[in-house]
Amino acid sequence: MASNSIHPDSRIARLEELFASLPGLGPRSAARLVSELLTARRGEAHEIAAGLETALKLVHHCPRCHTLTTDPVCSFCRDASRDKTRLCVVESVADQKAVEASIAYQGGYFVLMGRINPLEGTEPEALGVPQLLRRVKEEGVSELILATSYTPEGDVTAHLIASTVRKHFPEVRITRLSKGLPSGVELEYADAASIASAVIERR
Amino acid sequence: MASNSIHPDSRIARLEELFASLPGLGPRSAARLVSELLTARRGEAHEIAAGLETALKLVHHCPRCHTLTTDPVCSFCRDASRDKTRLCVVESVADQKAVEASIAYQGGYFVLMGRINPLEGTEPEALGVPQLLRRVKEEGVSELILATSYTPEGDVTAHLIASTVRKHFPEVRITRLSKGLPSGVELEYADAASIASAVIERR
Repeated sequence: MASNSIHPDSRIARLEELFASLPGLGPRSAARLVSELLTARRGEAHEIAAGLETALKLVHHCPRCHTLTTDPVCSFCRDASRDKTRLCVVESVADQKAVEASIAYQGGYFVLMGRINPLEGTEPEALGVPQLLRRVKEEGVSELILATSYTPEGDVTAHLIASTVRKHFPEVRITRLSKGLPSGVELEYADAASIASAVIERR
Repeated sequence: MASNSIHPDSRIARLEELFASLPGLGPRSAARLVSELLTARRGEAHEIAAGLETALKLVHHCPRCHTLTTDPVCSFCRDASRDKTRLCVVESVADQKAVEASIAYQGGYFVLMGRINPLEGTEPEALGVPQLLRRVKEEGVSELILATSYTPEGDVTAHLIASTVRKHFPEVRITRLSKGLPSGVELEYADAASIASAVIERR
């Protein structure tokens, strides 16, 4: 009657299925997680349900840096102490946090929330390139630092952004983090010291 | 300002934190998951939030087999075609599904929803041992099959249940799955053929 992957209770089975479809989870880990949420971690389960609904209602791209936020403007962009003439383009919030943790950078950020992936058909518009161009223009950015990973997708993304910005704003200096980053490794997994030297030796 | 593990948005950070505390997830995978739920998978996110709330409201231990269900009686226990004189005791729904998939067994189940762990202080009551004794009595069970894993905790659990049942119902035959199961491996990871021979050669 029950297959090896379907919980006998249809409501619980559907929850397991939903969790199993998420990145990093499979059928077994999803089943264990749902079972914990419905027994030992009921408090967390209520908070997750309520927190998801609230975040879904409020979440949007920050109008300045394009990251996800539930505030009108994200906390990075609210920080008036940062140097507005430099703008660091990162693939994700995780990468932004990694650059921030290196302490070598005090300028603004633009978070792509993804990267160009020709196979998956990711378009420059989905990454917020129009918003990036508007920001470069409106805030008089003098240097654009491309902090995409040294992976094929990161290279394509950096190339596309560099050529687009150069076309519209030839006066802007465009740099990329130096190859102190281990090639082929995601930026968010690099250690703070490597990221710091990569920021300092950017080219 | 932002540490490497805290999202700059406090609501999103709290969601990441909640997911990161769940079994099988860490800070990075939780951050990736929350970001997906709030962008590409908003439909699933709504369904998870609503499904969790509903399941939390309705979920309880099945009064007969002690598994988690949102129905008054679980679907295994509603199945009148099964042999009520035999009762198979398993540690989890995953183990129940693994025994079921071996097709070698057509009797009833009792799901412990855990196992005795002296270090974590798991008590026999939490595993539903009183309900198990009541069921053995009320349904005239003639054979109790202990299908706990061949791990230290599984052995302790089988020993405790066997001695408790033997004390109250010395006439009940108590068997354990034969050691066809690879020793030291969780039951739910065994293949159906090994489980089938372990059921047939139970001792």
